[in-house]
Amino acid sequence: MDEAAFITALRALAPDPAARGLDDDVAVIALGGEHLVLTHDMMVEGVHWLPGQDPADVAWKLVATNLSDLAAKGAAPLGVLLGYGLGGGEERFLAGLAEALAAFAVPLLGGDTVRRVGPAAHGLTALGRATHCPVPTRSGAQVGDRLWVTGSLGDAMLGFEALRDGREGRTGRDTTRFARPVPRLAEGRALAPLVGAMMDVSDGLLLDATRMARASGVTLAIDSAACPVPPDLPSARRQEALSWGDDYELLFTLPAGTTPPCPATCIGEAQTAGPVPLLLDGACPQGPLGYEHRG
Amino acid sequence: MDEAAFITALRALAPDPAARGLDDDVAVIALGGEHLVLTHDMMVEGVHWLPGQDPADVAWKLVATNLSDLAAKGAAPLGVLLGYGLGGGEERFLAGLAEALAAFAVPLLGGDTVRRVGPAAHGLTALGRATHCPVPTRSGAQVGDRLWVTGSLGDAMLGFEALRDGREGRTGRDTTRFARPVPRLAEGRALAPLVGAMMDVSDGLLLDATRMARASGVTLAIDSAACPVPPDLPSARRQEALSWGDDYELLFTLPAGTTPPCPATCIGEAQTAGPVPLLLDGACPQGPLGYEHRG
Repeated sequence: MDEAAFITALRALAPDPAARGLDDDVAVIALGGEHLVLTHDMMVEGVHWLPGQDPADVAWKLVATNLSDLAAKGAAPLGVLLGYGLGGGEERFLAGLAEALAAFAVPLLGGDTVRRVGPAAHGLTALGRATHCPVPTRSGAQVGDRLWVTGSLGDAMLGFEALRDGREGRTGRDTTRFARPVPRLAEGRALAPLVGAMMDVSDGLLLDATRMARASGVTLAIDSAACPVPPDLPSARRQEALSWGDDYELLFTLPAGTTPPCPATCIGEAQTAGPVPLLLDGACPQGPLGYEHRG
Repeated sequence: MDEAAFITALRALAPDPAARGLDDDVAVIALGGEHLVLTHDMMVEGVHWLPGQDPADVAWKLVATNLSDLAAKGAAPLGVLLGYGLGGGEERFLAGLAEALAAFAVPLLGGDTVRRVGPAAHGLTALGRATHCPVPTRSGAQVGDRLWVTGSLGDAMLGFEALRDGREGRTGRDTTRFARPVPRLAEGRALAPLVGAMMDVSDGLLLDATRMARASGVTLAIDSAACPVPPDLPSARRQEALSWGDDYELLFTLPAGTTPPCPATCIGEAQTAGPVPLLLDGACPQGPLGYEHRG
C-alpha cells in the first residue's frame, strides 16, 4: 500500500476532523478549559538525515520539527516524549537533545527506547497548550487576504548541499539552517490571534501553499520575486528553493492592510478559487512543488 | 551505550520527577484543572513481535500496551497518535488498528508515517485524563499493605509459545492473551481512588514488583502459590510464568482489610524494607525476574 492510500485509510479511522491531526500534522483537543495541541513525527536515517550526520543534529531536528508544528498553532510547548531506537550514537544524540530542550525551554516528559535492527529510526511526540482560540488552521485563508512568510526559504537546501558535499564549516557555507532549524515559537504565538490560516513550511513552500489553498478553498497567487531567499542563492535556483522543504518558516495569511507583529515578507494573496490551487507569477507552476510523501 | 545508561542519561534531562515518565513509563502533567497522562511505546519486528505475525495483532498490541499504561494511572483515554513505518502489511495493520480503537473506544488523533528501511518499527503515543487525583504511582506502597493482581499471569507466555510453535487456533491453545491483550481500563479507574501503589505487569511480575518495591522503599513479599496462573500451566513453570512479560494485568497495593472493587487475587504484602526488595516464598528469587531492557 502506498503512503497516500495508507494515510487516507487512517483518516477514515479518525472520526473527528476537528481533533485529528492526520491531514495537517497536528491534533487539537479540548481539555479542562484548555486546548491541547499534539504532534508526532518520526525520522529515519537515510530518509530524514544523511548517513553519518552528527546524531546531535538529528536529536535537535527531531525536537525542532515537532515544535515547529506547535508554533504553527500558536501553542506554548508543554513537553516532549521520545521514542528512541538504540544502536549507536547515543552520546551525541543526548548532547543534541539536551541542547534543543534547553534552547526551546521544553521539558522531556518521558518515552521509550527499543533496540534497533537496521537503520536508526526515532519518534518524538510534542504537546503544547494553545495560547489563542480558535487555534489557527490551514483552512482559514479568505479571498483578499495577503500571504506572508517569516524568515527566508532556501537556506536549508543550500545547507544540506554543503553538508552533503563536505563544504560546511568555517571556510564553507553555514549549514545551521539545515542541521539545526529553529521553530518560530514566539512568532507563532504573536501571529495566532491575527491570522486567517497558518502552517509551517516543512515540505516546500509551493507544496505547503497548495495544501493551504486546497484546505481553504481559495487559489493562492505567489509572486516568486517577492519570496525571501538567501543572498547566495543562484537566481536560476529560485523555484527550486521554493519547493525544497526543511525551512520551518511560518506561512500565514492576514487581511489586507494588517501588518504582522513579527518580521515577515508578503509574497502573494488569496484569490477566488480558480482551476488550480496555486499560481506562481500568474501561472500553474511546473515541476515538483515539494517533498511528497510516497510509498 | 547500553540501554540502562541511556535511560539514566535521559532521566537527567527530565528535570521534573513528578512530570517525567522515564522511570515508570507514564508522564503526568497538570493542565487547566485536569491531569493529563501520557505514554509512548515503540515496537520493533523481531523484538516485540514474531516475524510473520499478523500485522493486525501488532496494531492491536501497540494500542493495548499503551492503554495499559493509562489503566495503571486510572486514566480515561483521550486518544492516540501513531508513528508508522511503511513497508508492507498495511491492510492488516489498519484492520487491527480499527478493531482496537473500536474495542477500547479511543480515537486516533493523528500521527506520522515514514518509509521504513529494514524491519518494521512503529510507535504510539496515548494520552488520557486522570479520573482520580493524586494519580496512582508505583511508589505509594506502605508497610502492611496487601499486594494484589488482576486476572492471571502466564497466559501470554503460553500463548506466545503456541503461536511460535504453530499450535494456535481451534485445535491448539488460545493465543489471544499474547496476541490481543486487553488493557484493564475499567479496573484501573475503579482502583485509582483506593490503591497505595499501582502499575501494569508488562515485563514480568517479579521484575515489576521489584520496581514497585524499590520505588516505594519497601520489601514486597510474594507467595508464589497464591499467584493466579492458567490452569494448563505445568507446575514446574510457575516461576517462569511470574517472570514473563506481556500479561498487562494490574499490580497494586491496598491497605489490609480493603477489598478491591474488581476481581483480583491477593498475592503478598509490603514489609519493612529488608536487604532485598523482593521476597518470593520468603527468599530472594533466583534467575531472571522478567524482561530487562538491555543495550
